[in-house]
Amino acid sequence: MSSHNQSIREEAILLGKQAKAASRQLAPLSAEEKNRALRLIADQFEARSDYLIEENQKDLDAAKQAGISGALLDRIALDPRRISEMAKGLRDVAALPDPVGEIVKMWRRPNGLQVGRMRIPLGVIAMIYEARPNVTADAAALCLKSGNAVILRGGSEAYCSNQAIGAVLNSACAQTRVPTHAVQVVQNKEHSLVQELLQQEDTIDLVIPRGGEELIRAVTTNSRVPVIKHYKGVCHVYVDSDASLDMAERICMNAKVQRPSVCNAMETLLVHEAIAAVFLPPLIAKYRAAGVEIRGCEKTCALVSGIKPASEADWTTEYLDLILSVRIVKDMDEAIDHIERYGSEHTETIVTNNYQKSKAFIDRVNSSAVMVNASTRFNDGGELGLGAEIGISTSKIHAFGPMGLEELTTTKFVVLGDGQIRE
Amino acid sequence: MSSHNQSIREEAILLGKQAKAASRQLAPLSAEEKNRALRLIADQFEARSDYLIEENQKDLDAAKQAGISGALLDRIALDPRRISEMAKGLRDVAALPDPVGEIVKMWRRPNGLQVGRMRIPLGVIAMIYEARPNVTADAAALCLKSGNAVILRGGSEAYCSNQAIGAVLNSACAQTRVPTHAVQVVQNKEHSLVQELLQQEDTIDLVIPRGGEELIRAVTTNSRVPVIKHYKGVCHVYVDSDASLDMAERICMNAKVQRPSVCNAMETLLVHEAIAAVFLPPLIAKYRAAGVEIRGCEKTCALVSGIKPASEADWTTEYLDLILSVRIVKDMDEAIDHIERYGSEHTETIVTNNYQKSKAFIDRVNSSAVMVNASTRFNDGGELGLGAEIGISTSKIHAFGPMGLEELTTTKFVVLGDGQIRE
Repeated sequence: MSSHNQSIREEAILLGKQAKAASRQLAPLSAEEKNRALRLIADQFEARSDYLIEENQKDLDAAKQAGISGALLDRIALDPRRISEMAKGLRDVAALPDPVGEIVKMWRRPNGLQVGRMRIPLGVIAMIYEARPNVTADAAALCLKSGNAVILRGGSEAYCSNQAIGAVLNSACAQTRVPTHAVQVVQNKEHSLVQELLQQEDTIDLVIPRGGEELIRAVTTNSRVPVIKHYKGVCHVYVDSDASLDMAERICMNAKVQRPSVCNAMETLLVHEAIAAVFLPPLIAKYRAAGVEIRGCEKTCALVSGIKPASEADWTTEYLDLILSVRIVKDMDEAIDHIERYGSEHTETIVTNNYQKSKAFIDRVNSSAVMVNASTRFNDGGELGLGAEIGISTSKIHAFGPMGLEELTTTKFVVLGDGQIRE
Repeated sequence: MSSHNQSIREEAILLGKQAKAASRQLAPLSAEEKNRALRLIADQFEARSDYLIEENQKDLDAAKQAGISGALLDRIALDPRRISEMAKGLRDVAALPDPVGEIVKMWRRPNGLQVGRMRIPLGVIAMIYEARPNVTADAAALCLKSGNAVILRGGSEAYCSNQAIGAVLNSACAQTRVPTHAVQVVQNKEHSLVQELLQQEDTIDLVIPRGGEELIRAVTTNSRVPVIKHYKGVCHVYVDSDASLDMAERICMNAKVQRPSVCNAMETLLVHEAIAAVFLPPLIAKYRAAGVEIRGCEKTCALVSGIKPASEADWTTEYLDLILSVRIVKDMDEAIDHIERYGSEHTETIVTNNYQKSKAFIDRVNSSAVMVNASTRFNDGGELGLGAEIGISTSKIHAFGPMGLEELTTTKFVVLGDGQIRE
């Protein structure tokens, strides 16, 4: 190994060790102490917003020079309103209950041992994410509140912004009992440092990649540390023959149009053949009025003129855009078969007034959120009542669906005895 | 890629796809149907015990020819008593409650949505384990009961035994609604097939390696599928100055001597200096009488003659044998520091009658099981009341500590609406 690679590796090892040491000081802090730090950081974000905007401007200038524009440039930008939102996010997390120390269950064994499970922080979390400065603040807040040390490595296009957010964060924490290395924003820009971080299984407990599918696949392939991720959300609404069609239309419009760029937006609509002729033509007219392009199965194309035929690839595509694939199915079984074959286990909804079908859909569809008569857009930590979310998992290990504070903890067994030994 | 490698890869892909398809048929089966299958398998194990012993003999003959003897040979061997134990294990699992379908929590959102979390199977589990035929039966039973399809790949020294167990298992399942590929015992002996299985992240949800540290490290390094594991158990008993010394002696003897070869046996004893001179000499005499070799810190060596000094490596060694390292510490803080530095986050016990210290030890030590006044030997799924265990995890993701049926499940969000959409 070259001495350069060696020094990158040593840097990754050091980041991990510092985080692990910090996690041990952080774990026993009271909720009050952690909340005080979160509110102090929020105050400092607002007090130093000129500095944050100044540093952000450097990123924006560099991005423009590199030819970045549009939505990507917008995601990097900070302004007073966005800084206030970051501060509000921190105060919201401060107001949430602290999961650490909760006894989830406790029971007694025949030999008198009392056995319980107590929530504890995971330890050290590494976040690898794209160029979104607000993620730096949000992730730091959620990890801090749940007692985890965090290593933050955001996209290089937001480098100066992330460093500035990290500096403000750390100077606020320095006034509290939160240890120095509880939040570490990676300073080294080299990509190989990320690879080395993914090898630090002795100090890092969990990696959460957030970004495009390519980023997430690269992290999963190279990591020895457990990864929680979601690749994509190909979400379905199935409108049953027993649906209230007004309700179905409202849900379908909301699931596709309200915010098409997010993972819980609907990508494929499945419609029972018995109601297709009544339900689909007016709905498709509304979609078209809202600028949605429809790609249909054969039956859909036969029913409404001017529809582009859906290809096999359409059924597995996460458009993240005003495009919708539509299939007419013969019954709920065919809808569920379609979901199993093409879906991403993210979010599926049935619209029906039939009790048996609602129950069967819930039992048989094993996506991270299975809904009856509600928009797929509700699969979100805040909307489901978790308070906040650090990401959505479609891997079934540890957390499945939105991850809030509780999902950033694990439980240890606590055993209270009176001298019991095993015979 | 050579055509040979290509065919190995295709075999791994097929095993994964068959398992995934089976998992979808298995998930909705009722507890009654799964229990019937488990009891039928148990009956068949007993009815066909001659066949199992005959096939097992082939493994034993080959092992002897290969120079295998002692404990390893014994672990491979099947006899009528062990077959009865396997059958009993299956019936015990049939008697446990079915975790699938349990609603863990349910709450109502301000907009009227009812949100709950329902337990569902993980999907497909791959077990990679050493040459222990009973693991084939135990793992199949736990996976089946929790609604998971399983791919079993045991050590090659037990190849014929595992194939025979698999054949009996599958012929019993064929008389039930359990799908054909719910339990697949890998037939191909090639090691590269394991490597290919570890790449099947689209069909396999979890890998559980069981065996020595080397096996587990190899699986972790190469797997794209999430891995739940424990490397080793370096378990500690800390005897506090406020301990009842009789109780402490009983616990220390039990934790070391009752079954030294398992991961929850004590490897290091930490003793408060205030009681060391009274407590240690008679305890060490008892240990010696029980054949335990002591390796001591300087103070221990000064206190009792003829003790081998412990090296730095001793403090991190899982002896799995009648060897014990002993350190005299100045207080509980030093004991906890020692555990953090050298421990494996497996199991630690404090023996004390002091309330504050018991509470602080529980709060501050984040091992998978933290105990007061009880033997470390209780960190076991059966002993803690989980009913049965498929392994112990010392990674904090998903499951930390013994894994029973519940730990082989995840939860999905269930959302019941009345037409709610997002504003």
